[in-house]
Amino acid sequence: MRFVDLINKKKQGGNLTRDEIHFIVEGYTAGTIPDYQMSALLMAICFKGMDKREIADLTLAYVNSGDQIDLAEIEGIKVDKHSTGGVGDKVSLIIIPLVASAGVHVAKMSGRGLGHTGGTIDKLESIDGFKTELTRDEFIHNVNTYKMAIAGQSANLTPADKKIYALRDVTATVDSVPLIAASVMSKKIASGADAVVLDVKVGSGAFMKSLAEAKELAETMVEIGKSLNRKTIAIVTDMSQPLGREVGNANEVKEVIEVLEGRGAPDLTIVSLTIAAHMAVLGGAYPDFDKAYTALELVIKTGKAVEKLKQLVKIQGGNPDVIENPEKLPQAKYHFEVKATESGYVTAINAEAVGVSAMLLGAGRKKKDDQIAHAAGLTMVKKIGDKVNKGDTICILHTDMENCEEAENMVKSAYYFSDNEPQPINYIYEVIQ
Amino acid sequence: MRFVDLINKKKQGGNLTRDEIHFIVEGYTAGTIPDYQMSALLMAICFKGMDKREIADLTLAYVNSGDQIDLAEIEGIKVDKHSTGGVGDKVSLIIIPLVASAGVHVAKMSGRGLGHTGGTIDKLESIDGFKTELTRDEFIHNVNTYKMAIAGQSANLTPADKKIYALRDVTATVDSVPLIAASVMSKKIASGADAVVLDVKVGSGAFMKSLAEAKELAETMVEIGKSLNRKTIAIVTDMSQPLGREVGNANEVKEVIEVLEGRGAPDLTIVSLTIAAHMAVLGGAYPDFDKAYTALELVIKTGKAVEKLKQLVKIQGGNPDVIENPEKLPQAKYHFEVKATESGYVTAINAEAVGVSAMLLGAGRKKKDDQIAHAAGLTMVKKIGDKVNKGDTICILHTDMENCEEAENMVKSAYYFSDNEPQPINYIYEVIQ
Repeated sequence: MRFVDLINKKKQGGNLTRDEIHFIVEGYTAGTIPDYQMSALLMAICFKGMDKREIADLTLAYVNSGDQIDLAEIEGIKVDKHSTGGVGDKVSLIIIPLVASAGVHVAKMSGRGLGHTGGTIDKLESIDGFKTELTRDEFIHNVNTYKMAIAGQSANLTPADKKIYALRDVTATVDSVPLIAASVMSKKIASGADAVVLDVKVGSGAFMKSLAEAKELAETMVEIGKSLNRKTIAIVTDMSQPLGREVGNANEVKEVIEVLEGRGAPDLTIVSLTIAAHMAVLGGAYPDFDKAYTALELVIKTGKAVEKLKQLVKIQGGNPDVIENPEKLPQAKYHFEVKATESGYVTAINAEAVGVSAMLLGAGRKKKDDQIAHAAGLTMVKKIGDKVNKGDTICILHTDMENCEEAENMVKSAYYFSDNEPQPINYIYEVIQ
Repeated sequence: MRFVDLINKKKQGGNLTRDEIHFIVEGYTAGTIPDYQMSALLMAICFKGMDKREIADLTLAYVNSGDQIDLAEIEGIKVDKHSTGGVGDKVSLIIIPLVASAGVHVAKMSGRGLGHTGGTIDKLESIDGFKTELTRDEFIHNVNTYKMAIAGQSANLTPADKKIYALRDVTATVDSVPLIAASVMSKKIASGADAVVLDVKVGSGAFMKSLAEAKELAETMVEIGKSLNRKTIAIVTDMSQPLGREVGNANEVKEVIEVLEGRGAPDLTIVSLTIAAHMAVLGGAYPDFDKAYTALELVIKTGKAVEKLKQLVKIQGGNPDVIENPEKLPQAKYHFEVKATESGYVTAINAEAVGVSAMLLGAGRKKKDDQIAHAAGLTMVKKIGDKVNKGDTICILHTDMENCEEAENMVKSAYYFSDNEPQPINYIYEVIQ
């Protein structure tokens, strides 16, 4: 098999066989296929795509390239959740206690963030003492006993995807639905999930900017899941503005508590409940989505949900007091209020720009070894549809830096105003299953 | 300037600016741009193309990457000729004495072949004593005195193109009209040509398999030439079968003598005269093509053309006796006759397969350092339109190898027969100027 012939085959729009895909992935991971041939193939895939069978084969080749986590010792159906990423996305933190309250086993493995703000693991480390490095036995014991555990990912999962992703990043070949779909699904499958709920975000703060693209990605991932015998549901949700009111780490934990106490922002609450309800159904706790949704609303109302969060903090060594006293979470030195420069309705917020501001304030990592300032972030006082008068506070910046003019200007320019009230936005666009 | 942004720009169908193209070519040649980014860009160019301005800029960037030959000491207009390559293509050898006979200066620099048979330089080295390494002074003296010289290319011409071509070869990015056009034209411009006649071959033995592709390449190269102030004419000629009757090296020299004596195969004679006539017009020897063509026919008829070839051999140290006694050219040990396996008209010949057979017989190089067997090759006894009976000799293989079954089978399968007489084929499809 000559690699140049495989590149040419894809370039001409042909389909790669299973053997060819395994040859490519194994060869590249082993270093026998050079970067320059792989990047040419990746660019050809960007233009010519892959069919469902090819994507499923690519996904399995990624899975087979590294470790696979065996969760057989955990009882019942293991349901995982994945988000394609957005600004203010703290849904994972909400669904762990929520779904566990419904009696479904939530064995969550998560990464650190290399983005505008920290990842789920970083956010949890805002809580004093919270331990995210669990041994395998601790992890399994906690899930079997308390229905939940969250740990940082240490196994060598899908190294082929990692190596290929690094190449895609520097060769303008990231935005390919087949490559994104195989990347996401392989990680979930290698992590041992029986079923997966995918949160595909669309809008200014998401990778997918159009609904059509987001739907295509969602449908592709659901089909891969099915063809590999994993129950998979994809939900296309709004990311035309940051999700909820808080963007950062500690302040996002505070907002998680609010949602679980029934005081959350409507967009974040509805998106979280929708994802959690689908997970609860896939986990076998309820016969259908509506019953699950109603039951989970009740779990929040009765205080069971926030108690479950407190339990999670406790069993993983964190200080559970922060749940009742969120002011004990790390606090920033300075709080700058950003004022509206004109009057009118907020019609759009560039969520990506808000994310970059959060990073500038210290909430994220540019490089792998950067330190995160847990208290840094933003509070979105005004969101799309809100009416403001010139001079009103639209956003508050939290930071330990005395000067944050760049972040402030970025936030200011992220807001768009109009005299006319905009149409209410959907939180959920599509559910694909 | 981030290279990944340039890749993405081209991927999205954007045009690269002159500065960006120079940044790319200079950076890649200097080694500051890695292969894996360059190959991704090349693949994006294969899909999205380049506009005329981009191709002209790329051509100049190639030219500027290395030496440029100064032919100012040669009087008059320097007309060069280039072929996109085919099987049995010995036209360069014919046009040197032919155009020189018309009084136009022919300063031909040529390469060795890395293909089915040797290049022009290799073919000439079939002639005992023929010297293709001339000093600059010898070369210029010969052109000024005898109107002709041919030498191997030793200058460091268009190294950027060489480096990029090597990458294209292993990344399935060779077949891109902009990249081919810039590659060809940059070499001609760096060689010091004032005017260029391009022979763009189309058919089973050519790189361009369809007339539409060949026309596109021809038009693109003519436009580049014009935009860089070089008079340029492109002729699209047939390569649906080997050109002439001989494929190899020494036997091709023999066929050159035949054409210059007026006994050549019609396809080879007409293609050679057409190219030579356009060169003679560009060189200022005749006012128009028809006058040039008629005059060159007369040059052949009167014996002036073959005398000029004898002179060329003499002034470059070769044994001129071979012109009158071609049997003094290297002769192969064995001559195998390939017989027709059925009766009928020859309707098609896979010229590429004939070329590969020639290489198997020893006429070409697979690797740069391979030795060429000058006597090896094939004689195409039957060509398209010829009527044959089963058992007739259709082709003769010349080789020093006792066993050449593989080459023989390849030649057999290259011939296609039918009961119906095929339409006569065109030798010249288009002249673009």
